[in-house]
Amino acid sequence: MAGIFLRTLKLRTALSNLSLHSTFSGAAARLSPVDLSSPFLPASSWHFGFCCRTLHTGADRPEPSLAAAPDRLPFSRITLEDLAFFRKILPGRAITDPDLLESSNVDWLKSVRGSSEVLLRPQTTEEVSQIVKYCNSRNLAVTPQGGNTGLVGGSVPVYDEVILSTALMNNILTFDSVSGILTCQAGCVLENLSFYLEERDYIMPLDLGAKGSCHIGGNVATNAGGLRLLRYGSLHGTVLGLEVVLADGRVLDCLATLRKDNTGYDLKQLFIGSEGTLGVITAVSVLCPRKPKSVNVVFLGCETFEQLLKTFQLCRGMLGEILSAYEFLDSECMQLLNMHLKLPNPISDCPFYVVIETSGSDPTHDGEKLHNFLAEAMTSSLVTDGTVATEDSKIKSLWAMRERVTEALTHDGFNYKYDISLPVERIYQLVTDMREHLGGRAKRVVGYGHVGDGNLHLNITSPAKDPALLAAIEPFVYEWTASCQGSISAEHGLGLKKRNYIYYSKASQAVALMGDIKAMLDPKGILNPYKTLPDNLK
Amino acid sequence: MAGIFLRTLKLRTALSNLSLHSTFSGAAARLSPVDLSSPFLPASSWHFGFCCRTLHTGADRPEPSLAAAPDRLPFSRITLEDLAFFRKILPGRAITDPDLLESSNVDWLKSVRGSSEVLLRPQTTEEVSQIVKYCNSRNLAVTPQGGNTGLVGGSVPVYDEVILSTALMNNILTFDSVSGILTCQAGCVLENLSFYLEERDYIMPLDLGAKGSCHIGGNVATNAGGLRLLRYGSLHGTVLGLEVVLADGRVLDCLATLRKDNTGYDLKQLFIGSEGTLGVITAVSVLCPRKPKSVNVVFLGCETFEQLLKTFQLCRGMLGEILSAYEFLDSECMQLLNMHLKLPNPISDCPFYVVIETSGSDPTHDGEKLHNFLAEAMTSSLVTDGTVATEDSKIKSLWAMRERVTEALTHDGFNYKYDISLPVERIYQLVTDMREHLGGRAKRVVGYGHVGDGNLHLNITSPAKDPALLAAIEPFVYEWTASCQGSISAEHGLGLKKRNYIYYSKASQAVALMGDIKAMLDPKGILNPYKTLPDNLK
Repeated sequence: MAGIFLRTLKLRTALSNLSLHSTFSGAAARLSPVDLSSPFLPASSWHFGFCCRTLHTGADRPEPSLAAAPDRLPFSRITLEDLAFFRKILPGRAITDPDLLESSNVDWLKSVRGSSEVLLRPQTTEEVSQIVKYCNSRNLAVTPQGGNTGLVGGSVPVYDEVILSTALMNNILTFDSVSGILTCQAGCVLENLSFYLEERDYIMPLDLGAKGSCHIGGNVATNAGGLRLLRYGSLHGTVLGLEVVLADGRVLDCLATLRKDNTGYDLKQLFIGSEGTLGVITAVSVLCPRKPKSVNVVFLGCETFEQLLKTFQLCRGMLGEILSAYEFLDSECMQLLNMHLKLPNPISDCPFYVVIETSGSDPTHDGEKLHNFLAEAMTSSLVTDGTVATEDSKIKSLWAMRERVTEALTHDGFNYKYDISLPVERIYQLVTDMREHLGGRAKRVVGYGHVGDGNLHLNITSPAKDPALLAAIEPFVYEWTASCQGSISAEHGLGLKKRNYIYYSKASQAVALMGDIKAMLDPKGILNPYKTLPDNLK
Repeated sequence: MAGIFLRTLKLRTALSNLSLHSTFSGAAARLSPVDLSSPFLPASSWHFGFCCRTLHTGADRPEPSLAAAPDRLPFSRITLEDLAFFRKILPGRAITDPDLLESSNVDWLKSVRGSSEVLLRPQTTEEVSQIVKYCNSRNLAVTPQGGNTGLVGGSVPVYDEVILSTALMNNILTFDSVSGILTCQAGCVLENLSFYLEERDYIMPLDLGAKGSCHIGGNVATNAGGLRLLRYGSLHGTVLGLEVVLADGRVLDCLATLRKDNTGYDLKQLFIGSEGTLGVITAVSVLCPRKPKSVNVVFLGCETFEQLLKTFQLCRGMLGEILSAYEFLDSECMQLLNMHLKLPNPISDCPFYVVIETSGSDPTHDGEKLHNFLAEAMTSSLVTDGTVATEDSKIKSLWAMRERVTEALTHDGFNYKYDISLPVERIYQLVTDMREHLGGRAKRVVGYGHVGDGNLHLNITSPAKDPALLAAIEPFVYEWTASCQGSISAEHGLGLKKRNYIYYSKASQAVALMGDIKAMLDPKGILNPYKTLPDNLK
């Protein structure tokens, strides 16, 4: 317990510093000794403050949210000469038409909007290198963008950053059908890679709701978790190699296709989950599992979350190595699916629902294991209703009940989204505590997510942006999480929206070291500014 | 193919620079503008050269091996005041008796010997922090040491470095029986952790021959692979948190116990595989798999390596998710086991032997899968003989045939050891090519290793150290590996012996970035000097 108190203490100190900055930030920016006209922005001048531009906070709040964007940093502004340069190296692929730029300036949730004037669509690593090198020399900020499906405002510009899209870098480079190792450009859409692999008897080690749009480079840059992490582990284990363009345009070739390589520091790991702030990922090699011969999906209902957890323990024991997903949603999510997406509940109404997937190499064995597990779960009254799918179309429709919750939520009003990692026994307690804490102030408080990974997606909806509601949610949600030594971003990353909350999950000396790494790799801070790292970092 | 040529070209350039240093190193050291008496050694002065002290090369060689140690760097020498300080903070645990120091000054293979005058045995992170902070302020070099089972001279001092042993840091801190997440001090012996977990129905995600002596901290510092990597993946995926003492004594707390945490850069990854050169790992948290209910081991014989590979493909398909190891040894290894360790061949003589392990949750299902696989492998004449074990004692004796090859080799004379990662189809070709290349010069050329990971352990024995033989092996083995874009150290690390060969597997800009990271985290270079990074690094 001493550890928890210590961490909380450190946290409070870090946050007091933030508040101080927040309160005086306007003045601080004006009084800063940094020469704003200098093309070389030292890393130590990142801590400009917070206010001036609010995102999902209204003007009536006494203090702006820590999620609000800081002042624009003194990067150069795009000139006609810059555009001429981009058009020369990317003929027809340097987009300046505001209508075409619109969808790249705003995120999928429409919660963050930038005002970039140019979208660059390189096709090769060499082109990315030329772009970044040029931007670095000109002190132009760059926002790398994949499928733009992120949920924390990490993939869109905050001001007028150059958008560097990987959309045209969509070639598969090699696939070794013996080892299952795939190498491809960063802009390959996850679902396209899955189709490609399935024809060759393999699958991608990750799968997520946004698979139809998200790019593998973006997945790696955000260290996406998703639905298969329980079985195949994180990208830190399955990504074997990366090619990355550094802030000065150098190409870092770590695109190994080996399962094992202990020659020096594993540099690629630095870029996995760095949200484009340390380099632009241009190619990826990934270890792909064999396509399972047999897949089953079960949709179950439980009366209590405790029963849902007991069912998880039972199925880990009885399904063992064929368990590939254990996901949940609550009855509020089910109502949203019914109401907004017209998806009918495949079983009777229950407080909690579970999606269990098995994948294995022997349909008979898998069927037997599943049958035995279901019999035991029913007999011991852990589950009250359920349905099983073995056919592809029914599997897809059951998975939709879990995968489309995010989409259903967007139809329910303004979303306050939290992606929390906790000890698995605690994950639903946060939802009930939040409901009680907010009382009638929220339209809806819902919980769903990855039970197997201890990852809760907590969402609070409201008819519109509501600063008073936000003030009731935060810092309550973060303090609650920190008190369990949880993570305030399990898989979504920090991006713009969560950057200043990092101290709830990371010790201050760890954050300081992150700042040192950023300063080493991107001394001018041109790569995805205002993201991931907190504003007060020295 | 263009890629291969380009890499080879870069490599040759990098190696030419090394040779230049090698030839003129003595003079370079004397002419160096660096003030050797300065207590602050800048990182840029690491490239002193190579000669003066040879390890496993004789005096009759025209040029010293790139594995030979460089000149001693101008670290301070231990004084009586230093010893008094260490004795004060570690009463009875600052060892200076030469007899007691002996086993810490020499590596397991007895191939590298240092001359440290003090062995420190801290019990707590706070003590480690005090030691390292003091050494940094005094410019004393430090060699962290776990079980001292490394194979590349990474865990012993080269000169008079202070030895910092984790042997007394052997407490298990927490274990969560729901999530399977273990946290423990760095000095816990791997096998003790396995025993602890097995009583609680879990296992460690890694297993290796040295398990009875190696420490988990050392395993993480070298990114140990071992026998279970095929199933559970690398430590980059299974290690969830680390506590690390940095070179200036600061404690970096990244000891999370969460499966998912995307709050900022994943700093712990930097230390996994950094061989103690970036920080001293003091505690580890690791995700442990459930203990399988059913384990089977099969020992098979194949006529050709091609059949062995076909058998691997067959068993990946038919054993699927229950396959947990696919290891091999050749007939030369079998002869060594018979001769030196009196281990009888459990089947008839064959050119190649395979150890296959399955682990699963249902003994009947696993038995059926194994039976079907064996029937198919025999019918299609892929294997010529075999034996199956389901009982613990027989499982252990079959595993010994693979695990004790390293030990058997030590009785066969001087060992030249190579740990190579290659596309799996190529791994044995290197053994046959090496045999042909060396002709009668070697006593024995043997191959064994982890087929499933594409990891060959190539060993060449000789009655005694033989510089002419070494000159015939190297750079042949490294050039061969580089031509397949393999890794010259799959799992053993670079340590002292392989540090200068890094360019065969890593691009020069990647190595340069490693140097930047070292300089950032350990500006005086006190942590495990002469290891991992090449001598010519600027």
